Amino acid sequence: MTLNHFSRLITEHTWHPRLAARSNHLVGSEIRELLKLIGDPNIISFAGGVPDPSLLPREELRDCYQRQLADPRKAQIGLQYMASDGYLPLREWIAAQLSEDGVNCSASNVLILNGSQQGIDFAARLFIDPGDRVLVQNPTYLGALQAFRSFECAFDTLPGESECRAWQTYRERGADPKLIYVTPDFQNPTGISLSLATRLRIINLARDLDSAILEDHAYRHLRFEGAMLPSLTALELGPRHIDAGRALYLGTFSKIIAPGLRVAWLAAPAALLEKLIYIKQASDVQTSAIHQMVLAEILPASFSRVVAAQRIEYRRRRDSMLEAMSRYFPEEASWTKPEGGFFVWVTLPEGLDAANVLRQSLQETRVAFVPGKSFFADGSIAHTFRMSYSLANPEKIDKGIKLLGALLKRLIVESQR
Amino acid sequence: MTLNHFSRLITEHTWHPRLAARSNHLVGSEIRELLKLIGDPNIISFAGGVPDPSLLPREELRDCYQRQLADPRKAQIGLQYMASDGYLPLREWIAAQLSEDGVNCSASNVLILNGSQQGIDFAARLFIDPGDRVLVQNPTYLGALQAFRSFECAFDTLPGESECRAWQTYRERGADPKLIYVTPDFQNPTGISLSLATRLRIINLARDLDSAILEDHAYRHLRFEGAMLPSLTALELGPRHIDAGRALYLGTFSKIIAPGLRVAWLAAPAALLEKLIYIKQASDVQTSAIHQMVLAEILPASFSRVVAAQRIEYRRRRDSMLEAMSRYFPEEASWTKPEGGFFVWVTLPEGLDAANVLRQSLQETRVAFVPGKSFFADGSIAHTFRMSYSLANPEKIDKGIKLLGALLKRLIVESQR
Repeated sequence: MTLNHFSRLITEHTWHPRLAARSNHLVGSEIRELLKLIGDPNIISFAGGVPDPSLLPREELRDCYQRQLADPRKAQIGLQYMASDGYLPLREWIAAQLSEDGVNCSASNVLILNGSQQGIDFAARLFIDPGDRVLVQNPTYLGALQAFRSFECAFDTLPGESECRAWQTYRERGADPKLIYVTPDFQNPTGISLSLATRLRIINLARDLDSAILEDHAYRHLRFEGAMLPSLTALELGPRHIDAGRALYLGTFSKIIAPGLRVAWLAAPAALLEKLIYIKQASDVQTSAIHQMVLAEILPASFSRVVAAQRIEYRRRRDSMLEAMSRYFPEEASWTKPEGGFFVWVTLPEGLDAANVLRQSLQETRVAFVPGKSFFADGSIAHTFRMSYSLANPEKIDKGIKLLGALLKRLIVESQR
Repeated sequence: MTLNHFSRLITEHTWHPRLAARSNHLVGSEIRELLKLIGDPNIISFAGGVPDPSLLPREELRDCYQRQLADPRKAQIGLQYMASDGYLPLREWIAAQLSEDGVNCSASNVLILNGSQQGIDFAARLFIDPGDRVLVQNPTYLGALQAFRSFECAFDTLPGESECRAWQTYRERGADPKLIYVTPDFQNPTGISLSLATRLRIINLARDLDSAILEDHAYRHLRFEGAMLPSLTALELGPRHIDAGRALYLGTFSKIIAPGLRVAWLAAPAALLEKLIYIKQASDVQTSAIHQMVLAEILPASFSRVVAAQRIEYRRRRDSMLEAMSRYFPEEASWTKPEGGFFVWVTLPEGLDAANVLRQSLQETRVAFVPGKSFFADGSIAHTFRMSYSLANPEKIDKGIKLLGALLKRLIVESQR
């Protein structure tokens, strides 16, 4: 083994000069590394932004795979190759849902994806030449930064809601983003939603700068309270058909039905969808046929019921987390109050680096979370972190927040010495 | 509807100036279009290079999904997110198979993919900057041309087995391909396999020019007769570990177990695999967890038995096709005699364009096949076509070849007038 290892070292090829320039922008995801911690039963993890498996419709899925594969004619479709755009009944269900949500579109505007990360990747492939700019929220979804970076883009960041002047100066300094990427509802990582005013501002900006909008709606259906706001796609279109607009709408079944199926979808103007289907053909041909058939069969009867039950349970967990934070967290910390989704975003006093806090927390209290730094396009802000309440029950949440709160108080005192 | 269509026309956005340069290289696949014909029961189709669903292990798959989803602990893994490199027991099975086949590697050299097209796409992403050259067989797998083109590469083509001088001049004129892509066994589209001498020549070329080798082994296990030849990866490595080599080995479960699952894999030196995992994270996070678990469970007991039965049946179909061709095809045509896989490659007299033959065939005889032109990197050769025997029974093969043979004879006579 040691000899083998040695022989590898002395003969290994120097690949670097032979790789594409984009390979310099490939970096791993801190979050994917941290997900490994979930498996350790001694850790209380608020790290993974993943659904609770006990809330997924396991038995319905089991029965449905059974039916698909027991019937040779159905199995013949589910096990065989399928058209790259996806299974028509599934695309029809998605288009009908979208139309109800104010987006005038049809099944031919919908492309089935292998998870919603693929939608971000495809948008990057379609729009981004090296050096092109993408306008993102700051912080934003880490996976989006990874996908865009791997196509050698540069980032601009959206001003905050109250920075009226910054919105104007962004226009004035000749900004030219090809794409504006936003997660309007219960954002990963902050849990906050864009106001109606900000949605309209982004649309106006996109029109002024001739940018496409990619909106990522992974959590839209998991709203616990408050009024649902229109999607940017619906707002931008008004009564027009999606073909006339500039927005791409990304949705997924990973949070409600199951991440392990890897089924998501992108709705887009026909002129773009045609190109996106070619990208799908060239990149992985199609999404799993049997998963698409199973979803098309269970969604009409089950989706609303499944999501209604999840809303109740995740709301209970959010309430537990917010309650525990106000009880145990130091007054120097502040945090968001999400109206849905999986995440609370914590801001510490500026001197504290959340990555250091995590290291100490894993050693001392065995509580995990995700440091905020890598969610910022410029990696600038280190005193924030993301907490997910989706996987832990209220007792565990109370215990974990109590331990973490005590650690934070101590670290703040120490930092002030 | 008409009004709606009209309103789309007058308001549609002009996207072209806002798209990435690579979007100009996105084109649809003729084959994917032709696959739609398989559904028409009046057509005898030799077009699709797809497995016969009745030869796939449907009942074993059904029972296995049932078991995975009936057990909450298993389902918790299969329905949840999973590490990007893939499910360890599946990667271990693959590494063991590869090691038996002469490729010294371990599970940590294996990345699970969403279909083998994704392996070609990832290799393109890893190696190809715009303008870089890829060396391919001519003809070669159409999907590979699509994937490489979408990253704006240029193609060089491998000389034929007998063109000794051309191999030398390729070196001498300063060629610098980043990647050599080959399908060594029962190639799609020609059905022919590379001789041992050619495999060694390619390896020497790769070493001289410091190129990576990507070998695509979609059909390797479907050998009907003749001795199995070592893979290029095994030949290049000899006793060394894969980490010390320059070859990437692409395999898939789409031909033997089911295309609809979209599970394939790439084995590569660790230094490249690390980058490929980052590409996987950025592009679609992971391959379906439950599909990977199901495969890991059924492969050890079933793979050899399933593939043995398929070899017998596909061999019977190949024999029927070759026999019918020698009975009904005009003497001016020639064709390959594959030792495995799904395909026979037909060459017509030079004046005949196989795309025109297909059009007439669909009108008159209702027999479908794939014109050869789009398998050539330079699209130069029009008088060839691909025939697949994988989907039709011997009676249908005899009937279809008889009809097609009569048409070909007539067209040849007409072309000579």
